[in-house]
Amino acid sequence: MRLTRFSDYSLRVLIYLGLREGQLVTIRSISDAYGISRNHLMKVVSLLTRLEYLRAQRGPGGGIRLARDPADINLAQVIRDTEEDLNMVECFSPDGKCVISPVCRLQFVIHAALDAFMATMESHTLEDLLHPAANLSGLLNMRQDVSAASERALK
Amino acid sequence: MRLTRFSDYSLRVLIYLGLREGQLVTIRSISDAYGISRNHLMKVVSLLTRLEYLRAQRGPGGGIRLARDPADINLAQVIRDTEEDLNMVECFSPDGKCVISPVCRLQFVIHAALDAFMATMESHTLEDLLHPAANLSGLLNMRQDVSAASERALK
Repeated sequence: MRLTRFSDYSLRVLIYLGLREGQLVTIRSISDAYGISRNHLMKVVSLLTRLEYLRAQRGPGGGIRLARDPADINLAQVIRDTEEDLNMVECFSPDGKCVISPVCRLQFVIHAALDAFMATMESHTLEDLLHPAANLSGLLNMRQDVSAASERALK
Repeated sequence: MRLTRFSDYSLRVLIYLGLREGQLVTIRSISDAYGISRNHLMKVVSLLTRLEYLRAQRGPGGGIRLARDPADINLAQVIRDTEEDLNMVECFSPDGKCVISPVCRLQFVIHAALDAFMATMESHTLEDLLHPAANLSGLLNMRQDVSAASERALK
Protein backbone atom coordinates (compact mmCIF):
# COMPACT_ATOMS: atom_id res chain seq x y z
CA MET A 1 0.00 0.00 0.00
CA ARG A 2 1.53 3.29 -1.08
CA LEU A 3 0.70 6.59 -2.71
CA THR A 4 1.50 6.78 -6.41
CA ARG A 5 4.74 8.50 -7.40
CA PHE A 6 2.48 11.05 -9.09
CA SER A 7 0.96 12.08 -5.73
CA ASP A 8 4.36 12.02 -4.03
CA TYR A 9 5.86 14.34 -6.67
CA SER A 10 2.77 16.59 -6.62
CA LEU A 11 3.25 17.14 -2.90
CA ARG A 12 6.95 17.90 -3.41
CA VAL A 13 6.18 20.44 -6.13
CA LEU A 14 3.64 22.15 -3.87
CA ILE A 15 6.14 22.25 -0.96
CA TYR A 16 8.81 23.74 -3.23
CA LEU A 17 6.50 26.42 -4.58
CA GLY A 18 5.08 27.15 -1.14
CA LEU A 19 8.59 27.87 0.10
CA ARG A 20 9.20 30.28 -2.80
CA GLU A 21 6.18 32.37 -1.70
CA GLY A 22 4.74 33.31 -5.08
CA GLN A 23 8.04 33.68 -6.97
CA LEU A 24 8.16 32.22 -10.47
CA VAL A 25 10.10 28.97 -10.56
CA THR A 26 11.17 26.73 -13.44
CA ILE A 27 10.40 23.03 -13.61
CA ARG A 28 14.13 22.47 -14.09
CA SER A 29 14.91 24.09 -10.73
CA ILE A 30 12.43 21.77 -8.98
CA SER A 31 13.78 18.75 -10.86
CA ASP A 32 17.37 19.71 -9.97
CA ALA A 33 16.55 20.41 -6.31
CA TYR A 34 14.87 17.03 -5.72
CA GLY A 35 16.95 15.08 -8.24
CA ILE A 36 13.84 13.73 -9.96
CA SER A 37 12.89 13.32 -13.61
CA ARG A 38 11.83 16.49 -15.40
CA ASN A 39 9.60 14.37 -17.62
CA HIS A 40 7.54 13.17 -14.66
CA LEU A 41 7.39 16.68 -13.25
CA MET A 42 6.00 18.05 -16.53
CA LYS A 43 2.96 15.77 -16.17
CA VAL A 44 2.54 16.66 -12.51
CA VAL A 45 2.77 20.39 -13.21
CA SER A 46 0.37 20.07 -16.12
CA LEU A 47 -2.33 18.49 -13.91
CA LEU A 48 -1.74 20.85 -10.99
CA THR A 49 -2.03 23.82 -13.36
CA ARG A 50 -5.22 22.47 -14.92
CA LEU A 51 -6.68 22.02 -11.42
CA GLU A 52 -5.65 25.59 -10.52
CA TYR A 53 -3.21 24.73 -7.79
CA LEU A 54 -0.54 26.44 -9.92
CA ARG A 55 -0.40 29.27 -12.39
CA ALA A 56 2.02 29.07 -15.31
CA GLN A 57 3.59 32.04 -17.07
CA ARG A 58 4.98 31.25 -20.51
CA GLY A 59 7.90 32.76 -22.34
CA PRO A 60 11.38 33.90 -21.31
CA GLY A 61 11.58 34.60 -17.59
CA GLY A 62 8.39 32.53 -17.18
CA GLY A 63 7.73 29.69 -14.78
CA ILE A 64 5.17 28.42 -12.33
CA ARG A 65 3.97 29.56 -8.94
CA LEU A 66 1.23 28.67 -6.49
CA ALA A 67 -2.20 29.92 -7.50
CA ARG A 68 -3.61 29.66 -3.97
CA ASP A 69 -2.57 30.43 -0.43
CA PRO A 70 -0.83 27.36 1.13
CA ALA A 71 -3.39 27.44 3.95
CA ASP A 72 -6.11 26.90 1.33
CA ILE A 73 -4.50 23.77 -0.14
CA ASN A 74 -5.92 20.83 1.76
CA LEU A 75 -3.80 17.66 1.71
CA ALA A 76 -6.75 15.26 1.44
CA GLN A 77 -7.93 17.17 -1.62
CA VAL A 78 -4.46 16.95 -3.17
CA ILE A 79 -4.52 13.16 -2.66
CA ARG A 80 -8.01 12.85 -4.16
CA ASP A 81 -6.93 14.97 -7.15
CA THR A 82 -3.62 13.24 -7.83
CA GLU A 83 -4.26 9.54 -7.07
CA GLU A 84 -5.54 7.72 -10.13
CA ASP A 85 -8.25 6.29 -7.89
CA LEU A 86 -8.73 5.17 -4.31
CA ASN A 87 -9.91 1.67 -5.22
CA MET A 88 -8.20 -0.05 -2.31
CA VAL A 89 -9.54 -3.46 -3.35
CA GLU A 90 -11.07 -4.78 -6.56
CA CYS A 91 -14.68 -4.43 -5.35
CA PHE A 92 -14.31 -0.62 -5.01
CA SER A 93 -14.10 -0.40 -8.80
CA PRO A 94 -17.29 -0.44 -10.92
CA ASP A 95 -15.76 -3.20 -13.05
CA GLY A 96 -14.63 -5.29 -10.07
CA LYS A 97 -15.36 -8.99 -10.53
CA CYS A 98 -15.21 -10.43 -7.01
CA VAL A 99 -18.23 -12.74 -6.77
CA ILE A 100 -18.94 -12.08 -3.08
CA SER A 101 -18.95 -8.26 -3.37
CA PRO A 102 -22.77 -7.98 -3.19
CA VAL A 103 -22.69 -9.07 0.47
CA CYS A 104 -19.03 -8.95 1.56
CA ARG A 105 -18.33 -6.84 4.64
CA LEU A 106 -14.65 -6.37 3.90
CA GLN A 107 -15.49 -3.43 1.65
CA PHE A 108 -17.16 -1.61 4.56
CA VAL A 109 -14.19 -2.23 6.85
CA ILE A 110 -11.73 -0.97 4.24
CA HIS A 111 -13.93 2.01 3.39
CA ALA A 112 -13.97 2.96 7.08
CA ALA A 113 -10.18 2.59 7.28
CA LEU A 114 -9.72 4.74 4.17
CA ASP A 115 -12.08 7.37 5.64
CA ALA A 116 -9.91 7.43 8.78
CA PHE A 117 -6.80 7.89 6.62
CA MET A 118 -8.37 10.74 4.66
CA ALA A 119 -9.75 12.43 7.80
CA THR A 120 -6.18 12.76 9.08
CA MET A 121 -5.00 14.19 5.75
CA GLU A 122 -8.06 16.49 5.73
CA SER A 123 -6.89 18.13 8.96
CA HIS A 124 -3.71 19.44 7.31
CA THR A 125 -2.91 22.00 4.64
CA LEU A 126 0.21 22.76 2.62
CA GLU A 127 0.96 25.52 5.14
CA ASP A 128 1.73 22.81 7.76
CA LEU A 129 4.44 21.39 5.48
CA LEU A 130 6.38 24.64 4.99
CA HIS A 131 8.19 24.57 8.34
CA PRO A 132 11.00 24.70 9.29
CA ALA A 133 11.26 26.88 6.16
CA ALA A 134 14.96 27.73 6.50
CA ASN A 135 15.99 24.06 6.80
CA LEU A 136 13.73 22.97 3.95
CA SER A 137 15.02 25.77 1.70
CA GLY A 138 18.59 24.88 2.64
CA LEU A 139 18.13 21.22 1.70
CA LEU A 140 16.57 22.32 -1.60
CA ASN A 141 19.56 24.58 -2.29
CA MET A 142 17.31 27.62 -2.39
CA ARG A 143 19.85 29.70 -0.47
CA GLN A 144 22.29 29.18 -3.30
CA ASP A 145 19.65 30.43 -5.73
CA VAL A 146 19.05 33.49 -3.58
CA SER A 147 22.74 34.26 -3.22
CA ALA A 148 23.29 33.71 -6.96
CA ALA A 149 20.47 36.18 -7.63
CA SER A 150 21.98 38.63 -5.14
CA GLU A 151 25.37 38.30 -6.79
CA ARG A 152 23.83 39.02 -10.18
CA ALA A 153 22.04 42.03 -8.69
CA LEU A 154 25.35 43.34 -7.32
CA LYS A 155 27.08 43.21 -10.71
CA MET B 1 -3.50 4.08 -3.34
CA ARG B 2 -4.58 0.48 -3.09
CA LEU B 3 -3.81 -2.79 -1.38
CA THR B 4 -1.72 -5.20 -3.43
CA ARG B 5 -3.52 -7.99 -5.23
CA PHE B 6 -1.60 -10.31 -2.93
CA SER B 7 -3.34 -8.85 0.16
CA ASP B 8 -6.70 -8.80 -1.60
CA TYR B 9 -6.39 -12.50 -2.52
CA SER B 10 -5.11 -13.38 0.95
CA LEU B 11 -8.24 -11.92 2.50
CA ARG B 12 -10.42 -13.82 0.03
CA VAL B 13 -8.68 -17.11 0.84
CA LEU B 14 -9.19 -16.50 4.56
CA ILE B 15 -12.88 -15.68 4.04
CA TYR B 16 -13.37 -18.83 1.96
CA LEU B 17 -11.68 -21.05 4.54
CA GLY B 18 -13.45 -19.33 7.41
CA LEU B 19 -16.80 -20.18 5.80
CA ARG B 20 -15.74 -23.82 5.47
CA GLU B 21 -15.20 -24.04 9.24
CA GLY B 22 -12.11 -26.21 9.36
CA GLN B 23 -12.96 -28.48 6.40
CA LEU B 24 -10.12 -29.31 4.03
CA VAL B 25 -10.39 -27.34 0.81
CA THR B 26 -8.36 -27.48 -2.42
CA ILE B 27 -6.72 -24.42 -3.96
CA ARG B 28 -8.60 -25.28 -7.16
CA SER B 29 -11.95 -24.93 -5.40
CA ILE B 30 -10.99 -21.44 -4.16
CA SER B 31 -9.65 -20.48 -7.57
CA ASP B 32 -12.85 -21.73 -9.27
CA ALA B 33 -15.15 -20.04 -6.74
CA TYR B 34 -13.58 -16.59 -7.14
CA GLY B 35 -12.54 -17.02 -10.79
CA ILE B 36 -8.95 -16.05 -10.01
CA SER B 37 -5.60 -17.46 -11.10
CA ARG B 38 -4.51 -20.66 -9.36
CA ASN B 39 -0.91 -19.59 -9.85
CA HIS B 40 -1.40 -16.45 -7.76
CA LEU B 41 -3.29 -18.40 -5.14
CA MET B 42 -0.44 -20.89 -4.78
CA LYS B 43 1.88 -18.07 -3.69
CA VAL B 44 -0.73 -16.63 -1.33
CA VAL B 45 -1.42 -20.02 0.24
CA SER B 46 2.29 -20.70 0.57
CA LEU B 47 2.87 -17.50 2.58
CA LEU B 48 -0.27 -17.91 4.68
CA THR B 49 0.77 -21.47 5.52
CA ARG B 50 4.30 -20.37 6.42
CA LEU B 51 2.84 -17.70 8.71
CA GLU B 52 0.54 -20.32 10.31
CA TYR B 53 -2.75 -18.80 9.23
CA LEU B 54 -3.37 -22.05 7.35
CA ARG B 55 -2.48 -25.67 7.75
CA ALA B 56 -1.84 -27.79 4.68
CA GLN B 57 -2.43 -31.54 4.44
CA ARG B 58 -0.63 -33.19 1.56
CA GLY B 59 -1.58 -36.21 -0.52
CA PRO B 60 -4.86 -37.49 -1.96
CA GLY B 61 -7.85 -36.06 -0.13
CA GLY B 62 -5.55 -33.34 1.20
CA GLY B 63 -6.03 -29.61 1.13
CA ILE B 64 -5.82 -26.53 3.30
CA ARG B 65 -7.80 -25.23 6.23
CA LEU B 66 -7.57 -22.42 8.77
CA ALA B 67 -5.02 -23.00 11.51
CA ARG B 68 -6.61 -20.46 13.87
CA ASP B 69 -10.02 -19.42 15.04
CA PRO B 70 -11.39 -16.63 12.75
CA ALA B 71 -11.83 -14.43 15.84
CA ASP B 72 -8.06 -14.69 16.39
CA ILE B 73 -7.15 -13.48 12.89
CA ASN B 74 -6.79 -9.72 13.11
CA LEU B 75 -7.23 -7.85 9.82
CA ALA B 76 -4.48 -5.28 10.49
CA GLN B 77 -2.06 -8.15 11.10
CA VAL B 78 -3.09 -9.79 7.82
CA ILE B 79 -2.36 -6.50 5.99
CA ARG B 80 1.01 -6.11 7.71
CA ASP B 81 1.89 -9.72 6.83
CA THR B 82 0.76 -9.65 3.21
CA GLU B 83 1.66 -6.15 1.97
CA GLU B 84 5.20 -6.04 0.61
CA ASP B 85 5.71 -2.91 2.73
CA LEU B 86 3.73 0.06 3.97
CA ASN B 87 6.10 2.66 2.52
CA MET B 88 3.39 5.12 1.56
CA VAL B 89 5.94 7.63 0.22
CA GLU B 90 9.59 7.33 -0.76
CA CYS B 91 10.91 8.73 2.53
CA PHE B 92 9.38 5.81 4.52
CA SER B 93 11.91 3.50 2.89
CA PRO B 94 15.47 3.24 4.25
CA ASP B 95 16.79 3.83 0.71
CA GLY B 96 14.51 6.80 0.01
CA LYS B 97 16.33 9.65 -1.68
CA CYS B 98 14.10 12.70 -1.10
CA VAL B 99 16.49 15.49 -0.08
CA ILE B 100 14.10 17.17 2.34
CA SER B 101 13.26 14.04 4.32
CA PRO B 102 15.48 14.96 7.32
CA VAL B 103 13.08 17.79 8.21
CA CYS B 104 9.94 17.29 6.10
CA ARG B 105 6.70 17.13 8.08
CA LEU B 106 4.77 15.33 5.35
CA GLN B 107 6.12 12.02 6.64
CA PHE B 108 4.56 12.64 10.08
CA VAL B 109 1.20 13.55 8.56
CA ILE B 110 1.17 10.43 6.37
CA HIS B 111 2.36 8.22 9.24
CA ALA B 112 -0.54 9.53 11.35
CA ALA B 113 -2.99 8.86 8.50
CA LEU B 114 -1.64 5.33 8.04
CA ASP B 115 -1.93 4.74 11.79
CA ALA B 116 -5.60 5.81 11.59
CA PHE B 117 -6.13 3.38 8.69
CA MET B 118 -4.51 0.51 10.56
CA ALA B 119 -6.37 1.29 13.81
CA THR B 120 -9.66 0.73 11.95
CA MET B 121 -8.39 -2.55 10.48
CA GLU B 122 -7.09 -3.53 13.93
CA SER B 123 -10.61 -3.38 15.36
CA HIS B 124 -11.81 -6.20 13.08
CA THR B 125 -11.11 -9.91 12.79
CA LEU B 126 -11.85 -12.47 10.11
CA GLU B 127 -14.91 -13.46 12.16
CA ASP B 128 -16.53 -10.10 11.21
CA LEU B 129 -16.23 -10.98 7.52
CA LEU B 130 -18.00 -14.36 7.69
CA HIS B 131 -21.54 -12.98 7.77
CA PRO B 132 -24.04 -13.31 6.22
CA ALA B 133 -22.58 -16.83 5.92
CA ALA B 134 -25.41 -18.33 3.85
CA ASN B 135 -25.25 -15.56 1.22
CA LEU B 136 -21.46 -15.65 1.03
CA SER B 137 -21.45 -19.44 0.69
CA GLY B 138 -24.13 -19.21 -1.96
CA LEU B 139 -22.15 -16.74 -4.04
CA LEU B 140 -19.09 -18.98 -3.71
CA ASN B 141 -21.11 -21.97 -4.92
CA MET B 142 -20.43 -23.81 -1.69
CA ARG B 143 -23.95 -25.15 -1.62
CA GLN B 144 -23.25 -26.99 -4.87
CA ASP B 145 -20.15 -28.52 -3.29
CA VAL B 146 -22.15 -29.60 -0.29
CA SER B 147 -24.94 -31.10 -2.36
CA ALA B 148 -22.41 -32.82 -4.63
CA ALA B 149 -20.81 -34.31 -1.54
CA SER B 150 -24.23 -35.35 -0.21
CA GLU B 151 -25.08 -36.95 -3.54
CA ARG B 152 -21.84 -38.89 -3.50
CA ALA B 153 -22.57 -39.94 0.08
CA LEU B 154 -26.01 -41.22 -0.96
CA LYS B 155 -24.62 -43.43 -3.73
